[in-house]
Amino acid sequence: MEPLQKEEIEKAIQNLDGWEYNENAIHTKIEFKNFKEAFSAMTRIAFEAEAQAHHPEWTNVYNQLEISLSTHDAGGVTQKDIEMATTIETLLFN
Amino acid sequence: MEPLQKEEIEKAIQNLDGWEYNENAIHTKIEFKNFKEAFSAMTRIAFEAEAQAHHPEWTNVYNQLEISLSTHDAGGVTQKDIEMATTIETLLFN
Repeated sequence: MEPLQKEEIEKAIQNLDGWEYNENAIHTKIEFKNFKEAFSAMTRIAFEAEAQAHHPEWTNVYNQLEISLSTHDAGGVTQKDIEMATTIETLLFN
Repeated sequence: MEPLQKEEIEKAIQNLDGWEYNENAIHTKIEFKNFKEAFSAMTRIAFEAEAQAHHPEWTNVYNQLEISLSTHDAGGVTQKDIEMATTIETLLFN
């Protein structure tokens, strides 16, 4: 899978809420009510990540969750990352 | 709760496997077989963290898990962190 061009990535994340592109990955930060809400969201994302065979780099502390997506094999952001970001948005905010 | 002294922390983590003390927190890295194993471990830790009302800062990517423990209110490592590290070790390796 080929990495997307910068313009393609920036156009794609305009359709999402709260994602930024830098350092060859797309990133978001989400704040939840508390740890249980944050970890519940992580669990839902984990199942989707496993199903898509595409896993985030993510950091959690209490109610904060930071997620970075990139496709290591491709050396950048691919359509798989855009799909995973879209899945996360759908899971959490729809 | 008072932060522990450097010597107390270093003595306490000698009884644990793979923990280091630096930057005012204790840290470990654990490698699992795959994402499912890593996230299963995180889930077990999450329930304990919630029960102890003491939450890690942790980063996961695929089969890798990095955990940092400190007590923000105390500005350092306290007995709560040693207890959580011990809990994690017991959960995962015993």
